[in-house]
Amino acid sequence: MRVDEASLREDFDALAAIGATPAGGVDRPSFGDAHLAARRWFLERAKAAGLETRVDAAGNHSAVLPANGPTLLLGSHLDSVPDGGRYDGALGVVAALHVLLALQGHDLPLTLEAIDFTDEEGTLVGLLGSEALTGVLSDEVLRNPRGGRDALLAGLERAGLHEEQLRDARRDPTTLAGYVELHIEQGPGLEHAGTQIGIVTGIVGARSFTLDFRGDARHAGTTPMNARRDAGLAAAVFAAAANALVVRDFPGCVATVGDMRFHPGAFNIVPGSVRVSLEFRSLERAQLDALETVLLAEAKAAAKQHALGVDVTPVGHWEPTALDAGVRDAIETAAEGLGLTALELPSGAGHDAQALAGITPSGMIFVPSVGGISHNPSEHTEWEDCVNGANTLLHTALELCRVYAVRGT
Amino acid sequence: MRVDEASLREDFDALAAIGATPAGGVDRPSFGDAHLAARRWFLERAKAAGLETRVDAAGNHSAVLPANGPTLLLGSHLDSVPDGGRYDGALGVVAALHVLLALQGHDLPLTLEAIDFTDEEGTLVGLLGSEALTGVLSDEVLRNPRGGRDALLAGLERAGLHEEQLRDARRDPTTLAGYVELHIEQGPGLEHAGTQIGIVTGIVGARSFTLDFRGDARHAGTTPMNARRDAGLAAAVFAAAANALVVRDFPGCVATVGDMRFHPGAFNIVPGSVRVSLEFRSLERAQLDALETVLLAEAKAAAKQHALGVDVTPVGHWEPTALDAGVRDAIETAAEGLGLTALELPSGAGHDAQALAGITPSGMIFVPSVGGISHNPSEHTEWEDCVNGANTLLHTALELCRVYAVRGT
Repeated sequence: MRVDEASLREDFDALAAIGATPAGGVDRPSFGDAHLAARRWFLERAKAAGLETRVDAAGNHSAVLPANGPTLLLGSHLDSVPDGGRYDGALGVVAALHVLLALQGHDLPLTLEAIDFTDEEGTLVGLLGSEALTGVLSDEVLRNPRGGRDALLAGLERAGLHEEQLRDARRDPTTLAGYVELHIEQGPGLEHAGTQIGIVTGIVGARSFTLDFRGDARHAGTTPMNARRDAGLAAAVFAAAANALVVRDFPGCVATVGDMRFHPGAFNIVPGSVRVSLEFRSLERAQLDALETVLLAEAKAAAKQHALGVDVTPVGHWEPTALDAGVRDAIETAAEGLGLTALELPSGAGHDAQALAGITPSGMIFVPSVGGISHNPSEHTEWEDCVNGANTLLHTALELCRVYAVRGT
Repeated sequence: MRVDEASLREDFDALAAIGATPAGGVDRPSFGDAHLAARRWFLERAKAAGLETRVDAAGNHSAVLPANGPTLLLGSHLDSVPDGGRYDGALGVVAALHVLLALQGHDLPLTLEAIDFTDEEGTLVGLLGSEALTGVLSDEVLRNPRGGRDALLAGLERAGLHEEQLRDARRDPTTLAGYVELHIEQGPGLEHAGTQIGIVTGIVGARSFTLDFRGDARHAGTTPMNARRDAGLAAAVFAAAANALVVRDFPGCVATVGDMRFHPGAFNIVPGSVRVSLEFRSLERAQLDALETVLLAEAKAAAKQHALGVDVTPVGHWEPTALDAGVRDAIETAAEGLGLTALELPSGAGHDAQALAGITPSGMIFVPSVGGISHNPSEHTEWEDCVNGANTLLHTALELCRVYAVRGT
């Protein structure tokens, strides 16, 4: 059994046209016109095909193929980062829809639900829909949303949603059989390995910090090298050392200095202070702890070496999420059955599966990203890989139905 | 012979009150209200003391003690950087005025002129008055002034000056006997050495460049360390290496990375490009050449090491200026006669003496800056050092008169 490849392509292209950018990507930030139009398209497409539809209190949009058992969720998201690519999120939603279409009329032990989660990318909050559905959406995150309170309230209003009702989207875990998400890898791992399907072992945790190196702003002409407390130098030494240290001692982890802000920031003034944005990720909590210890010690050492101070401020964190072994087995079986090469790999990016994994057996299927590029109009996945991913999603759903039936209802 | 210390203090304080800031500094950018008020004060003070005054076509303000010989200029500037200190420039002007006052009624072989140069600090152009007086003010600098054309034209109008007449301020070098400027050091050299008077050997040259490191902006979670072209890392490695290299191989020179601009500049994106502001200074042209060679090679090596490119753009430069040996001898003699400790040192900052040195024997006297701080409200020089500086200026003028008289008119 296969998804209808021609129809999948037609639907993928129809979706990519909504909010299309001249550079070939899409611009569909949460609750903007293009995003709302994409969601309407999804519901109408499902209805037209004879599927049931639902929209919950958090705005999650679903197409449903009902059966007499609990629900296996298949999904992703239709929002994009500003000036993003056409594959990120959209591929998973349209593939989930086509899994349901392929299985219409079959007698299944599980209800199948193709779901488009609200605001995965974080224009407003990040994982808004999946956190509401899994019951972990916090007051704190709504009070201080990533995109600001005003944007959140305006967005909810545009979508016809109500802040105080968002949590009504919560689902009873006993009604769920699991969650499977097809997504582009957004990294170069599969491409480098020449492998068709990625079986995601888990989603890395991340921690981020602001490091404020504080020296003395001085005249760059009259202050000798040995009389300086150069915050820029300490920040640079830290960034170089942090990179070398992570490459050497933490294989598989990443650490990034994504920004440095120099103050006052002029050719002829020794930098008085520099604000460094540091983030690091690992699949293992113990490694996150170790990274935090050694990187912050390195920052303090760089500051001390240059006779200045450094203030460390935690900015954000999320814990690593292991994905379900049973779902991983089902994905492996599906890929094998389709004659596709597969390998296990972690996800370096966050996904709705992080939230879902907290309440139901969850898994993710990756397909290769050309050049590892994502969040960019030039994001691309070969069409053959998109189809492979959709068929793997289909057979994973079938395998999970089989396992459910064997274990007994 | 000494300057009148009490009167010097009174005048210094009167000047410091014009444009005074709450933090104890002054805010007198060129042709702002406070700057124009300070210049009026200077002319009125000179007139009240019975000195002649003049204002030239570039707005340079002078008090003159006429004699039968060429003119020895003594001066500095009354403009300040925004939110600057009370000593930078003002000390040299008020001390020059008091040298003339101390010598009123004496029979001198040289005309003495206490001069306040227009726009030394560069709110508009930088060294505007001294370059006009020495005939090196270029069309290019007026077309693209540091502060913008609009600010220049508005400033000239406020001061009653005319762009097309600025160059009429040019002085015939044969009418000049030399130039001596008293200034605060703006660096920690004299304080560290515990020395009272600095005899400036020359004014360093400087060159500045923009270095654009160009890599790939990539997802910081999904892009492994070994698959990155991290422009921030290359910039950091360059900044650290450049510093180490200059400290090791170029004693007495300075090199500064005063700014880095990361793009896109987010926690979760590997920096795609970073713009680095690099400046270096030396008293020797050959060393500037060598610094340029090794620092730009280092930038290219850092880029290559991280698999990215770097574009190098020259931004500005000025050549080193040697100060006159005869004037340096006169300063040394003056300090010795006053029982003051003195040492020779270069000036890391630019001064009007750069321009003057092109047409007449020029020298500078430095007095200690507490903590090396300048261009800041906390800029401070002990009053005793200010008086020492003024008396050294007085005796340098007397020594130059003596030498002139001995050599014969």
